[in-house]
Amino acid sequence: MQIVPPALERLIRDLSQLPGIGQKTASRLAMHILRTSRGSALELSEALATLHDSIKLCSQCFAFSETDPCSICGDPRRNHELICVVEQPSDLLAIEATGAFKGLYHILHGVLSPIDGIGPEEIKARELIARSRNGSVREIIIATSSTVPGEATASFLIDKLASPDIRLTRLACGIPMGMDIKYADKHTLTRAIEGRDPAR
Amino acid sequence: MQIVPPALERLIRDLSQLPGIGQKTASRLAMHILRTSRGSALELSEALATLHDSIKLCSQCFAFSETDPCSICGDPRRNHELICVVEQPSDLLAIEATGAFKGLYHILHGVLSPIDGIGPEEIKARELIARSRNGSVREIIIATSSTVPGEATASFLIDKLASPDIRLTRLACGIPMGMDIKYADKHTLTRAIEGRDPAR
Repeated sequence: MQIVPPALERLIRDLSQLPGIGQKTASRLAMHILRTSRGSALELSEALATLHDSIKLCSQCFAFSETDPCSICGDPRRNHELICVVEQPSDLLAIEATGAFKGLYHILHGVLSPIDGIGPEEIKARELIARSRNGSVREIIIATSSTVPGEATASFLIDKLASPDIRLTRLACGIPMGMDIKYADKHTLTRAIEGRDPAR
Repeated sequence: MQIVPPALERLIRDLSQLPGIGQKTASRLAMHILRTSRGSALELSEALATLHDSIKLCSQCFAFSETDPCSICGDPRRNHELICVVEQPSDLLAIEATGAFKGLYHILHGVLSPIDGIGPEEIKARELIARSRNGSVREIIIATSSTVPGEATASFLIDKLASPDIRLTRLACGIPMGMDIKYADKHTLTRAIEGRDPAR
């Protein structure tokens, strides 16, 4: 017998496709949406329906944007000689939130992962290499994650981007701010010792 | 400067209205939806748009249903003399999942909570009292939660439903299956001792 109405069942199934949302959470969310006003359900529906139509990728940095070039690439006050290479759009947001970076970005939309069939063609690596050769770039910061695929991607890019005209850098690796040294894992501590800075 | 495109910002804001979804989770979900196919975003959008139109409340038990009466109230094989009173539609699903109950339900859609302005008129209490007097009901199980508002609602209903023709019962309270007695809180243990069953 059909206890859950089909329309509710459908919403629960769709919600449970989202990452980190299991059957129980999906069911709780769907019940909440059903209990609250029709207006807020329609608002969310509309936001989803228009999402893909209004957002495209910036043709230079591949950030999600409603304009091309995006607001960062199109901003003359940013340093167009400096490119920070990140894995995902969310990394761009994290860096922008610091306010510490005034250059441009390049979003790979992934990392190299041969086991999943993700090679250089599947991420925006070729586009980055082409961009590095347009003559205006002075420095490229490779800001991929310090995970195995992130490191592999960084090595690959450093190899391909090597040029006497471009300075290649990576984010500093070390002890996070506020962390007690005794809780740092040994790899982080090794990197922190190797990359030690002069005391001021 | 607008870093997050407005259409994405809107979806993040709408998603963060849902219970248990904060700004970070909403942002992660929105990014996932943007990265996956347009088709699955439109499917979710459609499911949300049609939800309130296709689901109504059963006029007898107030369960969410696409038909009226709902599939439970309309099922002649269920025991129409027995009503189980629950707080929310999700409680109905939990009880149905046991397969141990073959009667009908009555969903209050809330509990009495004077501090939040929720009195008997705000929950389906009047409708339950009217239903109890139609002459066909023999037993009403009050299955509200064993929380303070749940207990207050149960007391209120027991008072109002009292009738020589109707047996009023409550769910048994005691040690959960599989739980070690030493971990049970003292209130549960007290109820379990008071409500002890004859050993077979």
